[in-house]
Amino acid sequence: MTTLTEFSLAEATAVLTRTPTILNALLRGLPSVWVRRNEGKDSWNAFDIVGHLIVGERTDWMPRARIILEHGEERPFDPFDRFAQAKESRGKSLEQLLDEFARSRKENLAALQALNLQPEDLTRRGMHPELGVVTLSQLLATWAVHDLTHLHQLSRVMAHQYREAVGPWSAYLGVLQCNGHSAP
Amino acid sequence: MTTLTEFSLAEATAVLTRTPTILNALLRGLPSVWVRRNEGKDSWNAFDIVGHLIVGERTDWMPRARIILEHGEERPFDPFDRFAQAKESRGKSLEQLLDEFARSRKENLAALQALNLQPEDLTRRGMHPELGVVTLSQLLATWAVHDLTHLHQLSRVMAHQYREAVGPWSAYLGVLQCNGHSAP
Repeated sequence: MTTLTEFSLAEATAVLTRTPTILNALLRGLPSVWVRRNEGKDSWNAFDIVGHLIVGERTDWMPRARIILEHGEERPFDPFDRFAQAKESRGKSLEQLLDEFARSRKENLAALQALNLQPEDLTRRGMHPELGVVTLSQLLATWAVHDLTHLHQLSRVMAHQYREAVGPWSAYLGVLQCNGHSAP
Repeated sequence: MTTLTEFSLAEATAVLTRTPTILNALLRGLPSVWVRRNEGKDSWNAFDIVGHLIVGERTDWMPRARIILEHGEERPFDPFDRFAQAKESRGKSLEQLLDEFARSRKENLAALQALNLQPEDLTRRGMHPELGVVTLSQLLATWAVHDLTHLHQLSRVMAHQYREAVGPWSAYLGVLQCNGHSAP
């Protein structure tokens, strides 16, 4: 068994590969109460979250991996735009976004595999504009946990819609006590 | 659009139907680091969580719905055993548990449909041994949100395994700030 801190490319890839299928199973064809509603104010609904994941595929994970491999710490990553999806998702259906995410993730995982990363590559360092020095393995671990943080958020946003409907059971349902820390 | 408080049998069923497929997509064949590890001490891993969902299918949701329909408030529900899965899952693989959950959920949703519930049925009242008076619609809403609470928990338990591996990014990943309120 590995320790808590050890990163494995195969393990991270196992999570990354599954996410499009999970989101399809969870969201495709769901009634709008679950996918178009948010947690109030400018919080995100399922539509926003899938849009955000697409932007990450295009501008965050693999582009940053390439910056680390090509430039190391010399060239800081470009900042990530957490609100780009508002513009980019406009006019698209949730089903279109799910298709786009699945396609983009598949391409990125193929590109990751094509890098044929060796254990020593995983220790290579890059420069995050806010967090400072990070390693390639930390970036790839974060890619996987970022998927999980948005699955966590999706389950919470959906549960919120039935906050009143469950009546006194709300005391027993942990997801209804989650205070929104998983907004990205 | 319905309000936040309004329950819809079709909407709740849409969630309940999807959960076995979601758990399959998330868990089947995953490396053991993600499914056999917990959050420390006697917290639950993915194996425990799927076992708990199976126990709920057999002893909680539909049995309680039947008690409401047959006895109303006169007969309190049997208490739910939150630890029954430890014994019942012993010796089984995660894949066996996923199959068992899918089969059990399918049977229960068929039984729910066979009840042919009418709007007035949803307001019928039962007696929870701790929470007091509850309605059938609250029970069915809770069934769906209970699925979401465990999806929320699963994403958190998995993310926990990479708490160290993500390095400084942990500050940005909400799921790593979730303090376990979603057990059980």
